[in-house]
Amino acid sequence: MQKNPNPCYYPDYLKLNMVLGSQEPLSGKYGEEAHDETLFIIVHQVYELWFKQILHEMGVVLNVFGQDYISESDLGSCLSKTYRVKSIQKVLIDQLNIIETMTPQAFLDFRDYLVPASGFQSVQFRELEIRLGLKTDNRVAYDNKSFHNRLSAEHQEYLINVEKQPALIDLLANWLERLPFVDFGGFKFWEQYQTAVWKMLDSDSEIIKNNPTLNHEEIKLQLKELDLTRASFESLFDDEKYNERFPNHVLSRKAMLSALFIKLYSWYPLLDIPARFLTSLMDIDELLANWRHNHALMVQRMIGTKIGTGGSAGHTYLKATTHSNRVFTDLFNISTFLVPTSALPKLPEEVIKNLQFQRM
Amino acid sequence: MQKNPNPCYYPDYLKLNMVLGSQEPLSGKYGEEAHDETLFIIVHQVYELWFKQILHEMGVVLNVFGQDYISESDLGSCLSKTYRVKSIQKVLIDQLNIIETMTPQAFLDFRDYLVPASGFQSVQFRELEIRLGLKTDNRVAYDNKSFHNRLSAEHQEYLINVEKQPALIDLLANWLERLPFVDFGGFKFWEQYQTAVWKMLDSDSEIIKNNPTLNHEEIKLQLKELDLTRASFESLFDDEKYNERFPNHVLSRKAMLSALFIKLYSWYPLLDIPARFLTSLMDIDELLANWRHNHALMVQRMIGTKIGTGGSAGHTYLKATTHSNRVFTDLFNISTFLVPTSALPKLPEEVIKNLQFQRM
Amino acid sequence: MQKNPNPCYYPDYLKLNMVLGSQEPLSGKYGEEAHDETLFIIVHQVYELWFKQILHEMGVVLNVFGQDYISESDLGSCLSKTYRVKSIQKVLIDQLNIIETMTPQAFLDFRDYLVPASGFQSVQFRELEIRLGLKTDNRVAYDNKSFHNRLSAEHQEYLINVEKQPALIDLLANWLERLPFVDFGGFKFWEQYQTAVWKMLDSDSEIIKNNPTLNHEEIKLQLKELDLTRASFESLFDDEKYNERFPNHVLSRKAMLSALFIKLYSWYPLLDIPARFLTSLMDIDELLANWRHNHALMVQRMIGTKIGTGGSAGHTYLKATTHSNRVFTDLFNISTFLVPTSALPKLPEEVIKNLQFQRM
Amino acid sequence: MQKNPNPCYYPDYLKLNMVLGSQEPLSGKYGEEAHDETLFIIVHQVYELWFKQILHEMGVVLNVFGQDYISESDLGSCLSKTYRVKSIQKVLIDQLNIIETMTPQAFLDFRDYLVPASGFQSVQFRELEIRLGLKTDNRVAYDNKSFHNRLSAEHQEYLINVEKQPALIDLLANWLERLPFVDFGGFKFWEQYQTAVWKMLDSDSEIIKNNPTLNHEEIKLQLKELDLTRASFESLFDDEKYNERFPNHVLSRKAMLSALFIKLYSWYPLLDIPARFLTSLMDIDELLANWRHNHALMVQRMIGTKIGTGGSAGHTYLKATTHSNRVFTDLFNISTFLVPTSALPKLPEEVIKNLQFQRM
Repeated sequence: MQKNPNPCYYPDYLKLNMVLGSQEPLSGKYGEEAHDETLFIIVHQVYELWFKQILHEMGVVLNVFGQDYISESDLGSCLSKTYRVKSIQKVLIDQLNIIETMTPQAFLDFRDYLVPASGFQSVQFRELEIRLGLKTDNRVAYDNKSFHNRLSAEHQEYLINVEKQPALIDLLANWLERLPFVDFGGFKFWEQYQTAVWKMLDSDSEIIKNNPTLNHEEIKLQLKELDLTRASFESLFDDEKYNERFPNHVLSRKAMLSALFIKLYSWYPLLDIPARFLTSLMDIDELLANWRHNHALMVQRMIGTKIGTGGSAGHTYLKATTHSNRVFTDLFNISTFLVPTSALPKLPEEVIKNLQFQRM
Repeated sequence: MQKNPNPCYYPDYLKLNMVLGSQEPLSGKYGEEAHDETLFIIVHQVYELWFKQILHEMGVVLNVFGQDYISESDLGSCLSKTYRVKSIQKVLIDQLNIIETMTPQAFLDFRDYLVPASGFQSVQFRELEIRLGLKTDNRVAYDNKSFHNRLSAEHQEYLINVEKQPALIDLLANWLERLPFVDFGGFKFWEQYQTAVWKMLDSDSEIIKNNPTLNHEEIKLQLKELDLTRASFESLFDDEKYNERFPNHVLSRKAMLSALFIKLYSWYPLLDIPARFLTSLMDIDELLANWRHNHALMVQRMIGTKIGTGGSAGHTYLKATTHSNRVFTDLFNISTFLVPTSALPKLPEEVIKNLQFQRM
Repeated sequence: MQKNPNPCYYPDYLKLNMVLGSQEPLSGKYGEEAHDETLFIIVHQVYELWFKQILHEMGVVLNVFGQDYISESDLGSCLSKTYRVKSIQKVLIDQLNIIETMTPQAFLDFRDYLVPASGFQSVQFRELEIRLGLKTDNRVAYDNKSFHNRLSAEHQEYLINVEKQPALIDLLANWLERLPFVDFGGFKFWEQYQTAVWKMLDSDSEIIKNNPTLNHEEIKLQLKELDLTRASFESLFDDEKYNERFPNHVLSRKAMLSALFIKLYSWYPLLDIPARFLTSLMDIDELLANWRHNHALMVQRMIGTKIGTGGSAGHTYLKATTHSNRVFTDLFNISTFLVPTSALPKLPEEVIKNLQFQRM
Repeated sequence: MQKNPNPCYYPDYLKLNMVLGSQEPLSGKYGEEAHDETLFIIVHQVYELWFKQILHEMGVVLNVFGQDYISESDLGSCLSKTYRVKSIQKVLIDQLNIIETMTPQAFLDFRDYLVPASGFQSVQFRELEIRLGLKTDNRVAYDNKSFHNRLSAEHQEYLINVEKQPALIDLLANWLERLPFVDFGGFKFWEQYQTAVWKMLDSDSEIIKNNPTLNHEEIKLQLKELDLTRASFESLFDDEKYNERFPNHVLSRKAMLSALFIKLYSWYPLLDIPARFLTSLMDIDELLANWRHNHALMVQRMIGTKIGTGGSAGHTYLKATTHSNRVFTDLFNISTFLVPTSALPKLPEEVIKNLQFQRM
């Protein structure tokens, strides 16, 4: 570790002259300065700083998952990175409370100067979505159309390049497919698992039929829904059915089986970190959805049914993205396939040995 | 203030033998006790305790708004109650993080015992929705159907009785209609306001037409949306148009004008508390929507695409209620009608005098 | 409202090339880049951005309080500013969770490069402390000594200049002293209030003497403490005693009486905003103390009993500042002087009239 | 899994008639009901419910740590329990915001009825402190004295019994002492580690001497402090010195060395969960300290310098407990002994093998 020959000075180290010199309200330039524009600028700058940090963390995760083999140490390190990302996301949501101290009226005092700027032009946020794995096909249509032409040529090019690189969801799929949990040689794990699941679904069916609070029509409706769950399950063992049941799936059937196995037996030491990692990705997806939701309400409160500064449909559009722009929905679907611990097939000793630390 | 003749003992005062003796996991009764069932019970009991507190606070607000005249003191007191409700709602949302430490697998270990119980059977939550003003017509259809028959006869009767009493949204509408901000005698306030708004909308129209990032089709689309805003505005001065433009409105046109005036001139002392109160109701509505959203995601994570224990469609249904079961949407719409402070009509001295404290 | 002739582009408006180009890890310059140094830089930059925003808000409050007369509108505006400051402070505390995702080990990988930089060199944080009213006499000694010589000449000069300007606590004192609540002419308010207080203290004395859970020695101890409260109260009506009982007070006795009156009768419309404002200042003080406390624990976790990078005593020093570097302790002390609503002297009609809105 | 023969009804399952029937304000019994007393009761009941849940979780951890051998699975399970405890603690802190919506004045309206009840009489909170390992010797003196005689005979007996059982800190110490990280046979790990630490301390010494912002006296002071760190380190290898340097230590020197090793090499798979577990215990300690701190400020705001309802010294006493009633201070001290990754002794292949999963 080489020494730093210069005494380090806090304001210089943080380049505060640049960071704190980057707030230039347009209202002050063209008229009376609107007090709240500074807040508007700073809150967005803070968002961008955190986006940079999230990308910094996800970069490590993407690197690790780009490798052919992922060691337990590396996976543990990735887990820590996702925990950090989550802690940042929580602050991103909390920050919305700060913006909400600005009244819609106060926003109007500088809103017109910002036209046609828009949050859609946050290159880092778009990059994050792409790197996580948001597919163009899954994006809400309106945004998709104008995704690129709102950006400068340089920024468009940058994002097009990002889109060419593998996304986390794809690398995760590859990793899950490589894991050896689909075939256990002589041990017919998945057959035994099927038996357990059929039992559980039959029980669910009884639950519905005997629910005294439901009328005939409702029972019919719900049994129909149960059939969908049954179909989901059947699809786990048939590629064609899988594609049909989950037309928007990103994880392949094989990857899903691995993820499912990890979740089913997560108490075995070898599966502890992988299970926590999958959960952490779901957390990230959920926090992103929470952020989108809260952000949409904040915009509704700010502009009502007006159009956004970028000419977007504003609140209505943002509301629509909350549930559609999800990345790890497949992981949430795993819960559909879980069975109670007591109903789980017992693993043979040999399999168990491989899931534990061995004392030499 | 009479004295308490008995020394007060903390555990007795809080009736802890009852409160802490009310956790009886069903898993322990019918099989091996599932560790996490205690969490499930306690978290729901805590929710119910907070619901009781919220109803306690809203009861005061409803009482005040049931009066023919609301003094500034009473309104200030209502404001404080809503602040408390908000602080509770924030904790209700934070608490979801606690439930999420339960894995879907751990939930399965006692889930079947709970059939067909369901969160729909939270009488207090239903009461809260009704007292705020959630209208049957605005409820998501499926829930509506089975709203009552999931409850015991006693609970059904209780809620039917609650439904007969005036809801906050209705009392708020009455109060707003009584305020004198619609007619100012000789001063043609609303005409001057119209002029200011037309100006702003024309400016928005220019913004769209001159946005270099939009193509022809997009511009057309957005100008169409702007026409809706224009129509909204026109509807402010015509009952028929108002009903047409806002078919789901609860606040009458007259009430909306009062609310709008309060928001437009909120810096006048007399309007300070009213404006804060309207904002606080929006906060409550928003926090409720946030809670619904986060709760729906939590359920998705817990059961995937399975049906709920009460035989409900689970996650999908809950997701649908997030945006539909809103109460104070009208207040959010007010932002549509705001104009920049600089464009506001100046009020005559006499009107201003009435909006301030008078030194005697 | 003049128009912005140039289309606004989000990344340019926010000067993102500057803001996002200001992270230059020293570890990368002198050795292998430590992954977590970026986090360290960004989190501190975000803190500084929020400090700037807080100073922006407090600037308005200071301006208003620098005026000879403060209108209700202006006070309402100040209240909103303090609400915003609080919402920022909450995020500042939440952010500590992000730093805590950095392990002490990871911090060591770049810590030495930062010497002798230190959080003490945050000019904005010092400015905030000074502007609120942290007095040099009340500062923890060690810090005081080296307060200035850790800073560049330019920064020293800047802060010395800030110190010459009136602080919020002083302006608040002036304002409270100007309010007419000390002398009500013929009405002997404070005499009646004294009677009510004596009653309450006598009751407290009985409480102690009859507490069956206390032994003789404990009762003696607590009666002694009660005597201090009694002395506090007596001091309310005697400048000399006041100075003796509250040697560190900043609010004068006269200012305290005004603040007390506001709190005692806060439900009167004229006192609503003033009372909320005083509470909000207490909130700010409390949140600052919470931040100091949590920050001290974070540092303890990070460096144990090591010295800080700036050569400070680290954790031990920070812990000491939590309770000592408080600004609005006087306001917290007001609670000592409150009496139950039922025991309050009734105000004469004339006084009440002046505390309400008058319909003309 | 046996079936539940009775349809489960949400209000019955949660025993809501008991839970929601346990709020009986004393003010209503002896005079006019104080609106806010319900809040006071409910918030404390919610605290007790969460305390019960925390004890439920810590019970599992204590059971596991009471075993002679702790498997990786069991430790992973304990880690999850502590994560849940942390999520509850965060809500306990957030909840203070709810209490703070009660004004000191409103509290006075029922305070006298509560005498001499006190939060000290929370049996569960005392139990939690004891089970974690708060030692009587480390408790703040005043509390210690009257620790038991404020409680009913039954509750005293209960807690005395709890005190006889092993606390988590002791079981943790045993477990750490059993781990094989103190002696590595031929490999002189701790000698190499010493060399690395001496180097780091010498560097720190240089840092101080060459800090241009310190004057001569300050340098002397800080070098003296550095000598303490050096002494700390020396104490790591000498029982007598260890006892002298850390007179309040609970973890033995041997246990500390194990914990230190875990932290130093936490990226090895076998140490991942243990390291996360130690960190999680620190988090719990920190959150408890945060809660105590925030609680003390809340009390200060509520009663000023008055005595508490239980006759306690109130705010001043609570403030004192924040830093003194800590349990896992030893774990925080570990940071004192860390060295940068680059300076760490390299472990021999054989040792490394034992810290990883073995493919059979």
